[in-house]
Formats: sequence, structure tokens, C-alpha cells
Amino acid sequence: MSRKEDVEAALLRLRPVVNEALSDVVDGSPPEQLTSASQHLIDAGGKRLRPVILLLAAEAVADRHISDGTDGDATAGDNPGSRLPGIPDDPSDYRHFPAADGRGVDVLTAAACVEVVHTFSLIHDDILDDDDVRRGVPAVHQQYGDEMAILAGDKLFARSFELLLETGASPANSVPALGMLSRTCVKLCEGEGLDISFEDRDGVSVPEYLQMVDLKTGVLFAATASIPAVVLGHKEAVDPLAGYGREVGRAFQIKDDLLDLTASTEALGKQRGSDLVEGKQTIVTAHAREQGIDVDNLVESETLEEVTEDEIDDAVEQLEDAGSIAYARDMARDCVERGKEHLSALPDTRPRQLLTDIAEHLVEREK
Amino acid sequence: MSRKEDVEAALLRLRPVVNEALSDVVDGSPPEQLTSASQHLIDAGGKRLRPVILLLAAEAVADRHISDGTDGDATAGDNPGSRLPGIPDDPSDYRHFPAADGRGVDVLTAAACVEVVHTFSLIHDDILDDDDVRRGVPAVHQQYGDEMAILAGDKLFARSFELLLETGASPANSVPALGMLSRTCVKLCEGEGLDISFEDRDGVSVPEYLQMVDLKTGVLFAATASIPAVVLGHKEAVDPLAGYGREVGRAFQIKDDLLDLTASTEALGKQRGSDLVEGKQTIVTAHAREQGIDVDNLVESETLEEVTEDEIDDAVEQLEDAGSIAYARDMARDCVERGKEHLSALPDTRPRQLLTDIAEHLVEREK
Repeated sequence: MSRKEDVEAALLRLRPVVNEALSDVVDGSPPEQLTSASQHLIDAGGKRLRPVILLLAAEAVADRHISDGTDGDATAGDNPGSRLPGIPDDPSDYRHFPAADGRGVDVLTAAACVEVVHTFSLIHDDILDDDDVRRGVPAVHQQYGDEMAILAGDKLFARSFELLLETGASPANSVPALGMLSRTCVKLCEGEGLDISFEDRDGVSVPEYLQMVDLKTGVLFAATASIPAVVLGHKEAVDPLAGYGREVGRAFQIKDDLLDLTASTEALGKQRGSDLVEGKQTIVTAHAREQGIDVDNLVESETLEEVTEDEIDDAVEQLEDAGSIAYARDMARDCVERGKEHLSALPDTRPRQLLTDIAEHLVEREK
Repeated sequence: MSRKEDVEAALLRLRPVVNEALSDVVDGSPPEQLTSASQHLIDAGGKRLRPVILLLAAEAVADRHISDGTDGDATAGDNPGSRLPGIPDDPSDYRHFPAADGRGVDVLTAAACVEVVHTFSLIHDDILDDDDVRRGVPAVHQQYGDEMAILAGDKLFARSFELLLETGASPANSVPALGMLSRTCVKLCEGEGLDISFEDRDGVSVPEYLQMVDLKTGVLFAATASIPAVVLGHKEAVDPLAGYGREVGRAFQIKDDLLDLTASTEALGKQRGSDLVEGKQTIVTAHAREQGIDVDNLVESETLEEVTEDEIDDAVEQLEDAGSIAYARDMARDCVERGKEHLSALPDTRPRQLLTDIAEHLVEREK
């Protein structure tokens, strides 16, 4: 199988497992409206990228322990073509995943936790950015009103901490995981705050933009990738996985910025170049501004309704000439390379290979 | 000293200690607007009732351990007129309070945590209820806009978990404390959701109303009173203190409902009877409705500007005739009695007496 097929096979296999774990994240406590509003975006689906990365990271760190209980060389087992443990055959294996201290830890609930945090931040961000559609359905505040959307986000926020307390990890491993989660959530808020504060600014520099991306996207990917190492008690893997996650998160956001300019309106499911029309700061515009491009007037049209494909083509050509698109593309690739370097501290297993493949896939994707 | 003086002396002594601990809850990470918005209500002051109760509860449970390290009879020590330890002379004692396992635990940071949770919920509630003024200053969303207010609430929410992880308690004691905090926050959201859902209803029953109060107010008071027992490792005191907190929280809210009708406009700092004018559900109106009173038309005026004191007087008289005011008053008193019964499981110390006094004081207060 090609790398792309490998990644897609892993996503296809793990997504249903994750969706099953997410199906009852919110219990039916009254009021009913709040339950529906809280579950709305979770039920709408999504790539489940974060929980999938968490499960693969769990496999990548559990390897040595499962194989022979030592940190030494592991030998191939039942799973031909990979070093142990490859990938659990039975999804329920994720419910009692072997920790360094011999406990069975529910990493699937940890995976649900990070998706719930992501969903909480989407719900509140959509209110802040006044976005109407998310995951192909009306945003929570569109369907349930701002009040219920604020509360639904809050409830999911609180639930994410409950979930991370339900993994069955030892208290000694749960406490640092919760520390990582709470620190991550503080940073998420600061990243979103920076993003909002950029709206009132004429322009932001590349470093300022990257700081915002790291806070808004990088820290949650870093926590996602490293929490399994924490709850499973594999301290040596925490920093490499956090480093991998941070780079992948940054690459993911940069690629999103690029796709808005380079993918087709059809593939995007929204107008190509919408960031330019709406005056959103991106890595591409931050770089172009530093090259002396008058970014705010690249596109004359001020609404998505009036803008033409020709206008966008012209703008993209100017950004290409300024080297800004190549700059962003190179930066995304560099992030992936650095992410892979971080992973090299882990044993060379199939789950580790999949984590590498996912990183590559994220910057190669066409939508 | 009278009971009231005792309570006021305790509040006067502990509030500055709490304020000091709260002064740097939010660090100066950018954006500046978010830092200011997050600190805004915390700096505006307030009764600090929850953190004070937490510190007194810590004293009430630490007693036996400090005295002689056993669960047996403690004898009086340096602190005449009380069993040990009375009240720390030095506020820094709260930073390393003796736990059952011999650790020094920072209960002052736990106290800051519950005030931060309370502040988060006030910030979001004020957006939901469109309240303009809080603690004598503009509500956060009034001063900083809805967007920053949502984020400021979120950031404080995340900070509260960080704070509870910074007490220095053992992981074995921190984990159940965090479980209590996250469960409490889920319930807070459900309580606020119920409150909002009541707005669309013609009337709510007394049990429905009490369920909402227990979720919106009771659970945080229960967590406040019992978290010190959890982080200090005094398991036997957790349930009694949670029971005390739950009853005190309910009494506190019922008394608030009563004061809106019985205190003077001057003492309240807002129009007496505003709940009636605004059609808010209270324990008094829930009871009156069950007695056949047409609660929605007790006051004809529909705004606080047009209502007269005479109108309010007439409405209160009708509520008195229906027995609804006496009913609420009795219920508040019953809560306090039950709260005191819960406390009787703890040793009879001065801090325990102060917890009793605070409960009494809450239902006797005139504003």
C-alpha cells in the first residue's frame, strides 16, 4: 500500500472506534436542549484526526512494554510485517491498554477527551467568528442560539476533564496528564484571543502569526500526541511526541492557509481565496506583507458573493511572485521534517510509521 | 462577641488573605485584553464567601491531625478557648497546611480555585442573562465585548483546574479533588441551562426550582466545603462537609430570593421586587403558583423604571397571605439546620463553630 492508502486505511479503521466512544460523551441530564446542543457537533462527524493520532501514539509507546516488558530490543510477534504490537485487532483493546506500571488504561477515553476539547473550542470559536456552518451542519449557536452554545461549550470543557479522569491510569500518571490538559486549554484561549486581537490590527508579522498558530492549534496537537505517553507512564516518550504534535499542528494550520489559495472552490466546499476577501491574517499574507505587497488590496471585492475566480487568480499570482506561497509550503514541509525527527526517539514501529505518514499526508492533501 | 461579629471578624481576617492569593491568578500572557478581561471581576472584589468557607473547612478537618496525629481525642493547645488548631496566626500557614499524609498542602490555592470557578460562571452567566453590572463594576461583556468575555470565562475555567493541581497534595488526593471539580462544573452548566430553559416556561414547580438551585449554587458550595477534606486526605470529613455546603448553597439562594422582596431598594442596591417585574422564577413564586396565585400578574408594570413601591408592597402582601414568604423562610432555616447536622460529624472546634455561624448569618442577613 502507498503511504496515502496506509493513512486512509488507518483513519477508516480507527474513526468508527472513536465515533463509538464519542457517542455517549454527554449523558441525558436535563435540560434536553443543552444535551442536544452539546452533542450536535460531535455527532456531525469530522476527520477525528486528533483522537486517531492519540491512539496511534499510544500504540507507538506501548510497543516496548507489550513486547517483552523491557526497554531493550523488541522482536516481531503475531503481527507479521511490523514490530510489536502493530495495531490491536479488537477495538476494545484500547479500553485496557497496557501501561508501564502493568495497569490497563483506557486510551480510547483519552482520545475522546481531546476530541471533546477540540469540539468545545470550535463551538466557542464559531460564536466569536460568527461562522454559520461547521462540519456540514449549522454551527451550534446558529441552531441553538448563543446562550445554549456558550453553555454547551462549557459543559464539554468540563466533560473533557471528567473523561481524562476516567482512563483508569494511576493517580501519579493522571495528575500530569490533567496538568497538560489544563495548561493546553489556557493556551487555546490565549491563541483565540490573539486571533481576535489581530482583527483590529493592520498587519501581523510572521512570528506573531506563528505564535498564534502554536497556541491555537499546536498546543492541542502536542497534548494529543503526548497524553498517551503520560497516562501510560512512558516518560521518555512525552517530549518527542509533544514535539511531533506541535510541528504537525503548525503544519496543519499552514496547509489550511495554503489550501484556501490553491485548492479549487469545489474541493474546498467554500469560495477559494475567502481568507483574502475577508481580510484574514494567514502565514501567506504575513509573509507577503513583509515583502512589501499591499495585502489588504490584493482582492478588490469585499464579499464572497461578488468576488470572481479571475480576481483570486490574479491575487494568487502576485503572492506566488512574492515567494509567499513557496515560503509557506517550505515551512509546512520543514515542520513535518522536524516532527519526524522528534519521532525518531521512539522505536521504529508500524504505529510510528503511521504517525509519520499522517504528518506527510497532512501537508500533501488537496482539500 | 456575638455570632454576627464572629462571622464578620472571620471574613475581615480571611478576605485580604484570599484577595492576595487571587491577585495574580492570571499571568500576563498576551493578548493584554484577555488578561484584563479575565482579571476584571476578580479584582472587583466580592464577598469571597466560597474561599473563606474553604479555608475554615480546612481548619475544621485539620484539627485532629494537627493536635496529636491520631483520630482520637484532641486536647487544647496554644490557642486558648478553642480546640486545636484554632485559626492560623500567619496567613502563609495556609500555603502549607498539614495533610493526613504529613504533606504541607496549599489550601489557599484551592480557595483561589473555587473563587475562580465562581467568577468564570458569573462572566458567562452575565452574557446569558444580559446583566450589565456585577460587583459594582460593568460586567465583563459590557466592558470588553461578548467575544473577550466568552474567552475570559474559558481561560479562568482552565486556570481553575491548573490551580487545583498546584496545591502540592499527593496525586492520590489530587485526583478525587479534580474529579469533584470537573463534576461540579458539568453540573453548574446544567443548572444554568435549566435556569435559561425556565424562561420559556409558564411556571416551574418547587421541586424543579430546587433542582436548578442545587445545580447552579449547591454543587459549587458542596465542592467548596469538601475539597479541603479531599486534598488533605480526611476522607471521613468529605461527605459531612459536602452535605453542609449543599444545604448552605441552597439556603443562600433562597435567602437571595427572599431579600429581593423583603429588603429595601436602598439596601439591595437595586429595585426591590425586580424578580417579580422581570418575571424571574424564584422559590417564592414557585410556591405561590402552587397556591393558585396568578404570579405573572402580581405586578402590572413591566419595567423597573415604571414600577412603584406601592405595587411591590401589594404583591408582597399577596405572597405573604399565600404563605409563600413564610414557606421560603422556613425552608432556608431548615437548610441551615440540616447543614449544621452534617457538621456534627466533625469535632467540635472553633472553625466548625464559624462554619455554623456563617450558615446562620447567611439566612439572617438583611442584604
